[in-house]
Amino acid sequence: MIKATVYVTIKQSVLDPQGVAVQGALHSMGFAEVDSVRIGKYLELTLDTSDKKEAEERVKVMCEKLLANTVVEDYRFELEG
Amino acid sequence: MIKATVYVTIKQSVLDPQGVAVQGALHSMGFAEVDSVRIGKYLELTLDTSDKKEAEERVKVMCEKLLANTVVEDYRFELEG
Repeated sequence: MIKATVYVTIKQSVLDPQGVAVQGALHSMGFAEVDSVRIGKYLELTLDTSDKKEAEERVKVMCEKLLANTVVEDYRFELEG
Repeated sequence: MIKATVYVTIKQSVLDPQGVAVQGALHSMGFAEVDSVRIGKYLELTLDTSDKKEAEERVKVMCEKLLANTVVEDYRFELEG
């Protein structure tokens, strides 16, 4: 079993309306020190394999094809186990 | 400036329908090795402060009050800078 942790974030040059909304909400709650908020996705996948090299390639394809929209999002992942 | 990275995940005992849907999609794309998928949120906050101790307490309150629904979600965060 390999555990893959995938982080999908919106590219720096792309506006993040959800983050802007959360920042506004935090400000109105009194957290004036919050300068910016960017929101992404965090995915935990368990893979029924023990071949780490192959898993790395496969997870990369999963990210490119489904998990991230590479036009506006970046992704990175870590494998363990 | 302190950068806070917040991870919000659905509690293990709670069903994650979004994760189940992504797992199904990955299976139908030929990634049969994917055993389970859990999806959470990943937030990057920049805080206009240099007091790390205070920032830690403030981010905890932000998580409890807005960023995580502690009934069904867990959270953890890291501070740097």
